[in-house]
Amino acid sequence: MGKKAEIRKLRKKLKKLKRALKQAGGASTPPVSPLAPPHFPDLPVIEGVRFAAVNSGVKYIGRPDVMLVEMTPGTAIAGTFTRSATRAEPVLDCQAKLGSDPGTKAAFLVNAGNANAFTGGHGVEAVAALTAAVAQTLEMPQERVFTASTGVIGEPLAHDKISAKLGELALGLSPARIRDGAEAIRTTDTFAKGASAEVELDGKVVKIAGIAKGSGMIAPDMATMLVFIFTDAQIAQPALQEMVSSLVADTFNAITVDSDTSTSDTLLVAATGASKIAVDANPSFRAALHSVMLDLAQQIVRDGEGASKFVTVRVRGAASQDDARRHAFAIANSPLVKTAIAGEDPNWGRIVMAIGKSGARAERDRLTIRFGDVLVAENGWVAPDYREEDGAAVMRKDEITITVDLGLGESSATVWTCDLTHGYITINADYRS
Amino acid sequence: MGKKAEIRKLRKKLKKLKRALKQAGGASTPPVSPLAPPHFPDLPVIEGVRFAAVNSGVKYIGRPDVMLVEMTPGTAIAGTFTRSATRAEPVLDCQAKLGSDPGTKAAFLVNAGNANAFTGGHGVEAVAALTAAVAQTLEMPQERVFTASTGVIGEPLAHDKISAKLGELALGLSPARIRDGAEAIRTTDTFAKGASAEVELDGKVVKIAGIAKGSGMIAPDMATMLVFIFTDAQIAQPALQEMVSSLVADTFNAITVDSDTSTSDTLLVAATGASKIAVDANPSFRAALHSVMLDLAQQIVRDGEGASKFVTVRVRGAASQDDARRHAFAIANSPLVKTAIAGEDPNWGRIVMAIGKSGARAERDRLTIRFGDVLVAENGWVAPDYREEDGAAVMRKDEITITVDLGLGESSATVWTCDLTHGYITINADYRS
Repeated sequence: MGKKAEIRKLRKKLKKLKRALKQAGGASTPPVSPLAPPHFPDLPVIEGVRFAAVNSGVKYIGRPDVMLVEMTPGTAIAGTFTRSATRAEPVLDCQAKLGSDPGTKAAFLVNAGNANAFTGGHGVEAVAALTAAVAQTLEMPQERVFTASTGVIGEPLAHDKISAKLGELALGLSPARIRDGAEAIRTTDTFAKGASAEVELDGKVVKIAGIAKGSGMIAPDMATMLVFIFTDAQIAQPALQEMVSSLVADTFNAITVDSDTSTSDTLLVAATGASKIAVDANPSFRAALHSVMLDLAQQIVRDGEGASKFVTVRVRGAASQDDARRHAFAIANSPLVKTAIAGEDPNWGRIVMAIGKSGARAERDRLTIRFGDVLVAENGWVAPDYREEDGAAVMRKDEITITVDLGLGESSATVWTCDLTHGYITINADYRS
Repeated sequence: MGKKAEIRKLRKKLKKLKRALKQAGGASTPPVSPLAPPHFPDLPVIEGVRFAAVNSGVKYIGRPDVMLVEMTPGTAIAGTFTRSATRAEPVLDCQAKLGSDPGTKAAFLVNAGNANAFTGGHGVEAVAALTAAVAQTLEMPQERVFTASTGVIGEPLAHDKISAKLGELALGLSPARIRDGAEAIRTTDTFAKGASAEVELDGKVVKIAGIAKGSGMIAPDMATMLVFIFTDAQIAQPALQEMVSSLVADTFNAITVDSDTSTSDTLLVAATGASKIAVDANPSFRAALHSVMLDLAQQIVRDGEGASKFVTVRVRGAASQDDARRHAFAIANSPLVKTAIAGEDPNWGRIVMAIGKSGARAERDRLTIRFGDVLVAENGWVAPDYREEDGAAVMRKDEITITVDLGLGESSATVWTCDLTHGYITINADYRS
């Protein structure tokens, strides 16, 4: 080998090692996700909702870890929850209460650090004690108190420590403290998550503000997804529930970090009616609620454990909607696709593999694959004009779109995910021990 | 700076980076899996089968990368294959040939380094050219030539380079060279895989010997699972096919490294009949074949990319066989369970999570979970006598058994997997680029 060739080869090796080292530096994970928004958004005050947050001492020290939200009488509350067969007690309790009479005040009590999941009879007692204590403190019926817990599974929740703080929380309630709530519900989240929208209807403005936590869709210990959205719109509970249940499919149920599903995922949407603007089935309101839900869902992916890339997977031309989703999730959940993205490797063979294994209908010779705008593969083989360096250039970006056209029908689906890095291993192999 | 000085400098930098990377952990993977058997087994000669291996220059340099196997007339050939919708051309060709007339000789031609998958019309041509060339060289019908290819997807296979070596391969055929074959079919495998069994029937001995490659069930680039098993038993093709199809469920279809499925997985079992011992449906022969298949399957898991732990997941007390398998695979494929094992963390909450998300029937309060012999959880909570240090002691072992009893029925399933480590990320994020 000539000297020039050797130098080229050594330089290439050096570059590769540098990148590997950067990833292995995953061992030290960044304090804030590189994909985080620049700052927490200014969220509008939602009339009829007050927030407070304190430290309870359940797990964390020196930071708020409990949020209390009080809502005005007449607030309609809708929700969707994890489908896990091993659901945590707070989830079961919330599900039972969605239909409760909206005539009275309502409250959310959320703690971070302990999931109160798989804690047997103790879990039931803890939820009963906390909801009773909130009901007494805020003078409202117990069936209007909703709780959510996120943190370690299987350890009893020291609910007395939280109850002891309810007086302080009640005194601290303020319409302006939603951001304190967003901070209090964090666990492994590297940033607090908020989003808002306003809709003009008949010359008046309806406001929506939401907060979320989660570093994965998905993760049983500390990365449960919790989402709380508030609006001053006037809407009956069944209509709100219908809207939320429908919108969740393309937002919170269209994201994945690692394919694992929490025992505690909870989305609650509260409509206080304080604006006196009726929105039942109004398309502008629906669009605004969708935008807040999608924004929060994507922020959860941006805070995916160890994430260095934000990835949009679009599947088109599927024979059915279900097929489109199955292909999209097969790609988004594939460890081999996710590690290729982490390595900035335009390894389209792994996309072909993921489509092949999804179980949904696909025909090898009709597939079209694009990285960003670059046509990579078509007609069962690499595209004639595809150059590896074009694919590699897309892969070097922070945000990557992978588009697959199956060429079989009219159905499509989009899901969002992140890459799989050394950071994920470091966070999850070393988390509890 | 002179070229020599530059090379020296680059080499120095490279060395420094390699050291840093090693310290950063994981990134440098061991040359041989820590879970590998101590040595390649002594495999018996199977009468009626001859092996040869050479280097073809398709991808690898300085090591054999093509295996040719010739089998005597009358050999019955059974097989099972990947269910991927994007199956490679050699797989489709093998599937079409299983029913071919066993009266003549048969051959396997296997190459490592290029999967001949997703290569459009070129893939069809390559298989046709190779099978025709083997048929001509060994003087046998083309429909008795089976090929398998493993390696990169989407690159055309330089089949002329392989055809050019067929004369040399034919000259080298020997009944004793099965190990050369096992070496030739390796890609990212860190060790060659072989297993054997002997069965005494009516005072005579039937022999079985098999080889395999794979560093994952599963992996589209270089870790496709290929398995070739030979026996001198006399058995009709339909009976052999029935036996193989049935035994694959609890062997090669009960292992997973990363949940990804290859486009090229191939298992071929050849029975030459040279022993003149008829074994149709004989339970001892069936048990011996099962033991060879299970041994090879477990060796593939032991060579799982980045693996540091060999994990057996047993699910009992399921309402149905399908439920048992779904729970077992949900646990074995969960990135959070696998990273906990990598971290030697007895994080049983993640087992609860995986059961919850599997979609199969489970009742939280009937679950029993054991790590090794240690009872960890029962009746919906941690077991009263469980001590974290007992669970941690199990997790520190190289081989770990996780047992879940669902308490719902009589069905059970066992699957084998490995942990998810920094090594997996390093291998798969940096593989192709």
